Amino acid sequence: MKVCVLGGDGYCGWAAALYLSKKGHEVSVVDNFARRTWDHELGVQTLTPIQPLADRLRAWYELTGHRIELFVGDVTDYDFLSTTIDNLRPEAVVHFAEQRAAPYSMIDRKHAVFTQVNNVVGTLNLLFAIREFQPECHVVKLGTMGEYGTPNIDIEEGYIRVEHNGRSDVLPFPKQPGSFYHLSKVHDSHNMMFACKIWGLRATDLNQGVVYGTVTDEVTLDEALINRFDYDEIFGTVLNRFCVQAAVGHPLTVYGKGGQTRGFLDIRDTVRCVELACLNPAGRGECRVYNQFTEQFSVLELAEMVQLAGRELGLEAEIRHIAGPRVEAEQHYYHAKHSKLIDLGLKPHYLSDSLLDSLMNIAIKYRDRIDTATFLPQVRWESAKNERRRSTAASLSETVI
Amino acid sequence: MKVCVLGGDGYCGWAAALYLSKKGHEVSVVDNFARRTWDHELGVQTLTPIQPLADRLRAWYELTGHRIELFVGDVTDYDFLSTTIDNLRPEAVVHFAEQRAAPYSMIDRKHAVFTQVNNVVGTLNLLFAIREFQPECHVVKLGTMGEYGTPNIDIEEGYIRVEHNGRSDVLPFPKQPGSFYHLSKVHDSHNMMFACKIWGLRATDLNQGVVYGTVTDEVTLDEALINRFDYDEIFGTVLNRFCVQAAVGHPLTVYGKGGQTRGFLDIRDTVRCVELACLNPAGRGECRVYNQFTEQFSVLELAEMVQLAGRELGLEAEIRHIAGPRVEAEQHYYHAKHSKLIDLGLKPHYLSDSLLDSLMNIAIKYRDRIDTATFLPQVRWESAKNERRRSTAASLSETVI
Repeated sequence: MKVCVLGGDGYCGWAAALYLSKKGHEVSVVDNFARRTWDHELGVQTLTPIQPLADRLRAWYELTGHRIELFVGDVTDYDFLSTTIDNLRPEAVVHFAEQRAAPYSMIDRKHAVFTQVNNVVGTLNLLFAIREFQPECHVVKLGTMGEYGTPNIDIEEGYIRVEHNGRSDVLPFPKQPGSFYHLSKVHDSHNMMFACKIWGLRATDLNQGVVYGTVTDEVTLDEALINRFDYDEIFGTVLNRFCVQAAVGHPLTVYGKGGQTRGFLDIRDTVRCVELACLNPAGRGECRVYNQFTEQFSVLELAEMVQLAGRELGLEAEIRHIAGPRVEAEQHYYHAKHSKLIDLGLKPHYLSDSLLDSLMNIAIKYRDRIDTATFLPQVRWESAKNERRRSTAASLSETVI
Repeated sequence: MKVCVLGGDGYCGWAAALYLSKKGHEVSVVDNFARRTWDHELGVQTLTPIQPLADRLRAWYELTGHRIELFVGDVTDYDFLSTTIDNLRPEAVVHFAEQRAAPYSMIDRKHAVFTQVNNVVGTLNLLFAIREFQPECHVVKLGTMGEYGTPNIDIEEGYIRVEHNGRSDVLPFPKQPGSFYHLSKVHDSHNMMFACKIWGLRATDLNQGVVYGTVTDEVTLDEALINRFDYDEIFGTVLNRFCVQAAVGHPLTVYGKGGQTRGFLDIRDTVRCVELACLNPAGRGECRVYNQFTEQFSVLELAEMVQLAGRELGLEAEIRHIAGPRVEAEQHYYHAKHSKLIDLGLKPHYLSDSLLDSLMNIAIKYRDRIDTATFLPQVRWESAKNERRRSTAASLSETVI
């Protein structure tokens, strides 16, 4: 089928574009290279040496014969986006083109406002462009499990039946997002539900957990195709950071008690989930929500798993609890449903099988590129203005708890 | 107390500023005259001939000796807003400074994006400015009952206890807003809850119903103080429109069956509620939600009340059902709680007592200024692009159902 991937130069977007292309879909990619610009802004880089997008696409074509068309532009520019949708007339648009880091949105007011305006306007533009030029198109939008927060009840997939004072209704699951970024995704979700209702659009909101790993079958074809592996305090996810810390013998830095529990998934499952959503489109007027993760772990459990895996490779890494920069519960109930994608045919990869192959080996292979100064949190939720200073080496002395 | 009213040149903002000033509070007003600009854009005007803000403020001072300080600027301009907050150091900020018309937000993509960016960024700026310069300040923010939509269960005041799979939690009430404007208010609500949680700000979210009336004790002092009375399809509210229609013998245009039920309140209650919220500030870290309305009516009930009141004044007006421009349920369950402001001391005015004095008499007094071409809905929810054409006279022929 004809699929357009917005944000196809990013971590999940790149992996998804290649996977869909290999599966025989007619894939095009939209990107404005914002993600690469943010690395420059923050003075960080992916552990893996990723190539320019044009080079990656050329390599993919030479290796596989599959051509992926590239449209360079910003989804907040309606003229650009709507012209692209009009030209392509895709059957599905997969929307990864958002600022996706909670800490980035918490740096200061400008970053909070940027994140919300960028994400909300991009998604509104997409909904209007589809309404205008390709109303049958299925919007597959990346949301996040972080939209739900950590309620003291089971988390359902998007909607919940509420019984109240003798009456009952199925309502959007109440949201308690924990950063200006997560809030932007909640805003998107509400906007998207409304657009489906009034215009009869088709949408699937994939509330994704924390993604780990960088290796998919496609990127292993050639070094030129290698995907991002972010481990810095802003864009890095916790599991990547632990692996990189273990690779250089740095303590695994757990925020607070480490009881923060979240849903996780392997990037190989991300790309499969996206395809499953595309292959099984929502009905007209339907805004489906799938919780897209395969296992849930606490941060401390992850640290212990990495510590063990490191030992198998001869790496010793202590676990160190440091003051967390976020305002979040360090111990809480967490039970989130995630059966709908399994019902569609997802066969999960499990972390216990992937940790050595897909994470530790990458961390070790590119060990020389690790910048330990980017490990420590400098963006604090309580502060309205974070001044981020880059030092040449990490110092744990002030923050150990 | 020291109160800053954002949006003090608007309908509710002006009435609130005068009321608070008369009650002895030290009032300042922030406005960028956006509301007057939208009238120019749409080719409509308030029924009542309102004076320039500077003239109104001068008249108020001359009549009462109370000075209201004016700061002209846009709340989406952080330098302006934060400097103003820093200079004033208010104890409470009452935030009316948003684009508040659902139909305006539904005109087309630009108006939808404008409404969401304007409202979300203004509120984010306010939260950051208070965090930075006056963290003890109480934010009294106007929300809307429209955030809840029309669920099939009782609507609580902001939060609901949900029992689910044997567990229980108090969660934000699920929102089902019905326009891009209402969505912007839901976005604001989520952002504000988060800011209170992470920064310990104090906030009250006043989820207001549909306000009617233009007469408050303060504005009746002098014609120079008269408040807005909007009846056009975009900014006019349904009750105002019915009164104006009755005054010129035009059919009362009910959208669809008229079973749409909403909460309503007299503008004299709006200003009292705002003062009650200011006098009883939220605690640090608390984001309270009050449902601010006094009675609920269906649209058809309102039409019948206006028809009867008109008869008492010798005006005959038929009720005509026309195709509604909105996507909304025309018959639905509606029961919304609204006891918290009563508990704080609100003594409601009731529509049955106000209809003749505060509405019909204004409509008749300014009958010569009525533009019947603005009655009919031209902005349709199903359309992504509404071309608004102003005709010189209303034609009902196409839309009668």
